[in-house]
Amino acid sequence: MDKMCLATAAIAAGLALTVTALAVEDDVTLLKQAQEQFKQLPKDMATPDFPVTQDRVQLGRLLFFDPRLSVDANVSCATCHQPSLYGTDALPKSIGVRQRIQARNAPTVLNTALHFVNHWRGERESVEDQAARALTAPVSSGQPDEQAVIDRLESISGYAPLFEAAFPGEQHPVDVRNIGKAIGAYERTLVTPSPFDRYLAGDVNALSATARAGLEKFIQTGCAACHNGAGVGGHMYQKFGVVEDYWVATGSKDIDKGRAEITKDSADLYIFKVPSLRNVAMTAPYFHDGSVATLPEAVSFMARVQLGTKLNDGDTRDIVAFLESLTGDLPADFTTIPILPPAAVVAPK
Amino acid sequence: MDKMCLATAAIAAGLALTVTALAVEDDVTLLKQAQEQFKQLPKDMATPDFPVTQDRVQLGRLLFFDPRLSVDANVSCATCHQPSLYGTDALPKSIGVRQRIQARNAPTVLNTALHFVNHWRGERESVEDQAARALTAPVSSGQPDEQAVIDRLESISGYAPLFEAAFPGEQHPVDVRNIGKAIGAYERTLVTPSPFDRYLAGDVNALSATARAGLEKFIQTGCAACHNGAGVGGHMYQKFGVVEDYWVATGSKDIDKGRAEITKDSADLYIFKVPSLRNVAMTAPYFHDGSVATLPEAVSFMARVQLGTKLNDGDTRDIVAFLESLTGDLPADFTTIPILPPAAVVAPK
Repeated sequence: MDKMCLATAAIAAGLALTVTALAVEDDVTLLKQAQEQFKQLPKDMATPDFPVTQDRVQLGRLLFFDPRLSVDANVSCATCHQPSLYGTDALPKSIGVRQRIQARNAPTVLNTALHFVNHWRGERESVEDQAARALTAPVSSGQPDEQAVIDRLESISGYAPLFEAAFPGEQHPVDVRNIGKAIGAYERTLVTPSPFDRYLAGDVNALSATARAGLEKFIQTGCAACHNGAGVGGHMYQKFGVVEDYWVATGSKDIDKGRAEITKDSADLYIFKVPSLRNVAMTAPYFHDGSVATLPEAVSFMARVQLGTKLNDGDTRDIVAFLESLTGDLPADFTTIPILPPAAVVAPK
Repeated sequence: MDKMCLATAAIAAGLALTVTALAVEDDVTLLKQAQEQFKQLPKDMATPDFPVTQDRVQLGRLLFFDPRLSVDANVSCATCHQPSLYGTDALPKSIGVRQRIQARNAPTVLNTALHFVNHWRGERESVEDQAARALTAPVSSGQPDEQAVIDRLESISGYAPLFEAAFPGEQHPVDVRNIGKAIGAYERTLVTPSPFDRYLAGDVNALSATARAGLEKFIQTGCAACHNGAGVGGHMYQKFGVVEDYWVATGSKDIDKGRAEITKDSADLYIFKVPSLRNVAMTAPYFHDGSVATLPEAVSFMARVQLGTKLNDGDTRDIVAFLESLTGDLPADFTTIPILPPAAVVAPK
């Protein structure tokens, strides 16, 4: 190696060190930014109003998987929130009892108790409220009234002692409110920690370089203005179609007025709950109407419709890599199915 | 203690010893009888034609739990054969796609590959044949034709490499016959060893005294004439209603002509496959039409209708205790749900 060459090598090495140092500094800056915008998932999602007790979780888990709660005994919570599909059903809009179609896409049940309200339009206060009201909702479980739900449950003798244990001291523990509380308690355990949580805890290498680039673009493009917090979304309302009408970009056929139909306030036109992006890579299709089948398309549409930004393919790829780092480990209590108390559902003779 | 008393005690002790000795002798006799009539479950149910390879089982398990194979992407094998209900759905007759009702009760999928034929009327040769033909059956999966099944599977990119691994060297491995073979291979692993298998292996105390009394009555009453072998049934055809018409006893509303509808032979009138009694205590309701909700009723009806025997309550209770000893351990690959390759099912724009 001659002198010139040595000098060049020395400069190159110096540059490499500088680049590495800059990269490390950038990594630290990005991590700090991320820690300001997002939060690690909690261990469970109990609140003072909705405690997670072992008896409630055990009962709620059985109820979650029991199709016999529905009017024809063939639809359970797990029908639209299948463990094998990360708590969704891969459909634009779920098919409930008697081939009735839900009005909006079924979001995953995972981490959902984090959300500040439930349902796309915020018309359910909590996962408990959602579960209890689904039982007599015409499309979900389709029971004609609460008494029909109770009658069905009382025909399965194994349940009574479990309700007594989960709601001690109550005179009539088998009750729709308590079904909601038990299913809710179970859902409050369905937390899916992911590589992104390890990253937020300080392990920069928990995300690939591509995913980190995607995270940076996710923040810089403005996605994190709404998709933030522990849920990476789920914590506020937002208009869908800030810059242009969403149905133009997504090709949606039915125009959904969103929260305006609940509040009857025109200020709520096209307002929906910002969905959580936890496990988003596993829960296609996307948006309130399930109109978009793949994640790259969804990312590109959102940038255009919400932020007026045209992402190039590289940006989209990086952001998708970041979103894939939100795919978490499923709880064993979700992928392992409980054995239900046996009893046939037979029409009275 | 005076002499008289001592003598009495000695006689009593002698009697007790004799009774114990007789009981032990009876136990040995009963075990021998049982070993002649029944067999322990095998480790798996592979045959030379239908091998159980790891790649096939892995693929078949995914397909078994994937609702996207059905026409509306909302019915999987596990819809009617739910792990939480021991491979059944607790319904008299299952509800398939589009609220269509099956003609007969869905038997459990557990240990079913042991059966000499499949379906109540024997019109399916094997579990592979059943699985493959269910895909285009109007009530089960409801796909219009085989190409529709293949198109759906090919829209889920994660499947192609799994088919290639399971059927190496084949030019078009994604094929309805291979779907049947893969699901069949998985089903051939669904074996549920129970206390009765430990009993047959020689451990007399694996069954309670009541269950042993029930086993003895089960054999003596004549139940084992049809319900025998490893499946405790599933190995022959028999007329339902040997002594009197079954629909009188069970209150069945529709009279099912059974195998005669398949063979067009009047000798097959009311002939059905003898169902396996493995896990029968967990798989109510009973009979080809699911017309009977509880096991004691089913036992009592069968004795009356098939054997002309009126069982008293004690006999029925003992036989039920024996049947409960056929409740086995579920395989982990059945109660633990696999994560499916993600992909939305969205109608083309």
